Amino acid sequence: MTHSAPPSADGVWQHLRLAPGALADDRDAVADAAIVVLGGKIEWIGERASLPAMHAGLPRFDGGGALVTPGLVDCHTHLVYGGQRANEFAMRLAGATYEEVAKAGGGIVSSVRATREADEDTLFVQAAARLEQLLADGVCAIEIKSGYGLALDHERKQLRVARRLGEAYGVTVRTTFLGAHALPPEYAGRSGDYIDLVCSEMLPALAAEGLVDAVDVFCERIAFSLAETERVFQAAQALGLPVKLHAEQLSDMGGAALAAHYGALSCDHIEHLSAEGIEAMRAAGTVAVLLPGAYYTLRDTHLPPIAALRAAGVPMAVSTDHNPGTSPALSLLLMANMACTLFRLTVPEALAGVTRHAARALGLQHTHGALHVGQPANFVLWNVRDAAELAYWFGQRPLRTVVRQGRIAAGAAA
Amino acid sequence: MTHSAPPSADGVWQHLRLAPGALADDRDAVADAAIVVLGGKIEWIGERASLPAMHAGLPRFDGGGALVTPGLVDCHTHLVYGGQRANEFAMRLAGATYEEVAKAGGGIVSSVRATREADEDTLFVQAAARLEQLLADGVCAIEIKSGYGLALDHERKQLRVARRLGEAYGVTVRTTFLGAHALPPEYAGRSGDYIDLVCSEMLPALAAEGLVDAVDVFCERIAFSLAETERVFQAAQALGLPVKLHAEQLSDMGGAALAAHYGALSCDHIEHLSAEGIEAMRAAGTVAVLLPGAYYTLRDTHLPPIAALRAAGVPMAVSTDHNPGTSPALSLLLMANMACTLFRLTVPEALAGVTRHAARALGLQHTHGALHVGQPANFVLWNVRDAAELAYWFGQRPLRTVVRQGRIAAGAAA
Ligand SMILES: [Zn+2]
Ligand SMILES: [Zn+2]
Repeated sequence: MTHSAPPSADGVWQHLRLAPGALADDRDAVADAAIVVLGGKIEWIGERASLPAMHAGLPRFDGGGALVTPGLVDCHTHLVYGGQRANEFAMRLAGATYEEVAKAGGGIVSSVRATREADEDTLFVQAAARLEQLLADGVCAIEIKSGYGLALDHERKQLRVARRLGEAYGVTVRTTFLGAHALPPEYAGRSGDYIDLVCSEMLPALAAEGLVDAVDVFCERIAFSLAETERVFQAAQALGLPVKLHAEQLSDMGGAALAAHYGALSCDHIEHLSAEGIEAMRAAGTVAVLLPGAYYTLRDTHLPPIAALRAAGVPMAVSTDHNPGTSPALSLLLMANMACTLFRLTVPEALAGVTRHAARALGLQHTHGALHVGQPANFVLWNVRDAAELAYWFGQRPLRTVVRQGRIAAGAAA
Repeated sequence: MTHSAPPSADGVWQHLRLAPGALADDRDAVADAAIVVLGGKIEWIGERASLPAMHAGLPRFDGGGALVTPGLVDCHTHLVYGGQRANEFAMRLAGATYEEVAKAGGGIVSSVRATREADEDTLFVQAAARLEQLLADGVCAIEIKSGYGLALDHERKQLRVARRLGEAYGVTVRTTFLGAHALPPEYAGRSGDYIDLVCSEMLPALAAEGLVDAVDVFCERIAFSLAETERVFQAAQALGLPVKLHAEQLSDMGGAALAAHYGALSCDHIEHLSAEGIEAMRAAGTVAVLLPGAYYTLRDTHLPPIAALRAAGVPMAVSTDHNPGTSPALSLLLMANMACTLFRLTVPEALAGVTRHAARALGLQHTHGALHVGQPANFVLWNVRDAAELAYWFGQRPLRTVVRQGRIAAGAAA
C-alpha cells in the first residue's frame, strides 16, 4: 500500500486562476497567476506577467487556465477503525430495533471490538482505502483521532496507523488522542476510573511516544461529564498539548466555554451551543467545526447557531467527521455543499471552512489552508470555471491535479 | 472529446461475487462467480466451478474477489444545457432575494437563454464533463431530457447532443422530449398556443428525426395543467411514443393517474402522490421515480409516500434528476445513500432503484438493470466487501472496473 514517491512539482505552474481567498496574505484573486515551486516549497506567487527573471529557466507546468485553491484540510475525522457498519445501516433501514442492532453486534461497541481485534497492518489497509477517497478531493492535511481502541495498546495502534498513513501518502496528518470517546465495556459504571487511566497512563505514554498532536473529549450526557472533560484538559495542559472538544452535539453541556477557557483549538458539532459558549470561543480564538455529514446522517433538525457564530466572528470550519456510525462520509467537497445546503453557509464561508479555518482548527494556519510562500507546496487545480462550483455541484470529483507536499499526486483515487 | 474505443471485455471474468439481485433470472447471489463475455455480450454467468469447457480457452480477467452489480441506470436527468447556475446558488446563500436573482439573470430562464445561445458543440463539451462524472459511478444507461430549448431548433440541439454523447461514450442514452418543461418567455400568457406548437410541430418533427424515445411533461401549477398534459400525451400516443410525467412534486394535480391511464413508463418526483395515484400506477405497472437530490437541494420536508408505494408493490427507481437549478447532483451512488437516509428506502430497495427499476422506468428492463444473458455486457466491479456499502458510504467513488457495452471503460472520470 505504500506508494513510490510521486514526481516533484518543482517548476513554474502557469495559466492558473487563483480562487478568492487562496492567498495567505489576502491579496485579491489573481486572474492569470503563476506559482513557483522550489525544493517542494512555494517560492513565489503572483501575476504571470510579473514572474521574476530568475525563475524563467525552471520547468513549466501548464495549468490550462484551471482554478487553483489551497489544498483542502479535513480537520475532524475518525478515519482509523476496524470493520465498517454497512450491515447496521441496512438493518436499521429494514426496521431493526436498537436492541436488535445491538444484539447483532452493532453500535460503537462493534467498532471498538473490531478495532481491538485488528492488527496495525489491517487497520492501515482499511483506513488507506478511505484516505484515498478523501485525497481524491484534494485533501492535503487531515486530522485523525483515536477513540475506538479505548485501551492503551489499541489507542496506540490507531495513532501509529495515522502516522504511517501520513508517511505513506505524503499528506500532513495531525493525530488527536480521543481516549475519552466512549466508556469501554470493561469500565461500565466506573467512568471515573477510566478517566484516571486516560489521564495518568494512556495520554502520558502516547504523548511520550510522539503520537499525540492534540487531545479531544466527547463531552455529552451519553459520554463524559464536564468535570471529567476538565480532568482530561488538565492532563493535556500539563503535557503542553492543545485541546479540542466534541461539544454540545446533543445538549448544551457548557463544554464550549470550558474548552475555550483551556484555549481549545476548536469546538466541534456544537448544534446546541449557547450564546455564552459563542462568546467564550470568540474571546479565545477557538474555531467552530461544523459537521454536516453527521447532521445529515442522523437526520438532525437542530441547526448549529450559524448566524450567531457569523455575527461574533468565530471562524467556522467544515469537516467530514468521517466515522463508521454517524458519518460514513468520503468527500470533503460534499461537506462544503452540505454546509451550504443544510446549514446555509455562504459559498465563501464553506470554502474557507474546508481550507483556511480548517487549518486553524488544527493549529496549521501558518502552513496550510492558504498559499503560503516559503511553506511546502499544497495546492489543487480544479476542472471548474468558478470557485462557487466547488460547493454547487454535489457528488462530483472535479480535481484535475493536486500538489501535495511539493509533489504531484495522482488525480483520482484508485 | 470523442474517445478511441476502449478495449474489448471479451473473455472470462472470474473471482467475482455477484451482488444480491444482480441476475436477471433471480437466481441467488453467487459467491464465486464467473461471467463470460463474447462479442460484447454476456454469454454465460454462473459458479466459476461450473464454467462450461467450451469457454475455458478464452482470455481471463481476474476480478480479485470484487463485488459485481449490473451497470447502474440513471433514469431521469436534464444533463444537456448551457451554462450552470453556481453563481445563483452563491447569491441565494448570500441572502439575495428572488427578485435580485432574477434581475441578475437567474432561474430556469437563464438556463433556457444559455441553452439557446450555445451551439451543439458547446453543449456537447459542457454535458460531456458532467456525463464523465456520472459514468465514474458505473452508470451504463442514462436518460437525457430536452426542455431548456423550448423551441424546435433548440430542443433539437439538446436531443442531438444527447445522442452524440451516447455514441462518444459508449453508453446507452434514452432521449426524452420535454418540450412542455416550462413556458418559454415569448409565449407568456399563451400556454395553449405553446402546447399547440409542442404537439403539432415540435414533437412530430423531432420524432421523425429519430430523436425521441419518450415524451415527458412537467404537470404542476407553475408549469402545465392536467388538460395540457393530456394533449401532449395524446400527441405522443399518436406517434407510438411512451410517456413519463413530472408529477405531484409540489401539489397533487392528479397527474399520476392520468399518466398511468396512458400507460406511462414512470411518474417522477411524486412527493404529493395520492392513494388514487398509487393505485393507478400499480395497475398500469408504472414506475415511481424518486429524486432525493432535488428534495435535498430544495430542503423539501414533504416525503414521497414510500410506505404506501412499497405496500402497493409499485417499483421504485432512484435517480439524480441532474439539472442546474434544483439538483446539480453528479453521483448516482450518492442518490442511493440519500434515498436511504432521507427517504428511508431499505438498502436492497435503493440498489434496485438505481439498477433494475431504473431500467424499467426507461423501458430497458430486458437489456439493462440486471445481468441479462444474451444482452450487451454492462456490469461493474466494486472495491467494496458488501453490497450495502454502495449505499452506506457517501461521497465515495468505489468503482474498480466498469464493462460498458462490452468494453472495459476507464475507472474514474478524468
Ligand atoms: Zn467526531
Ligand atoms: Zn426533472
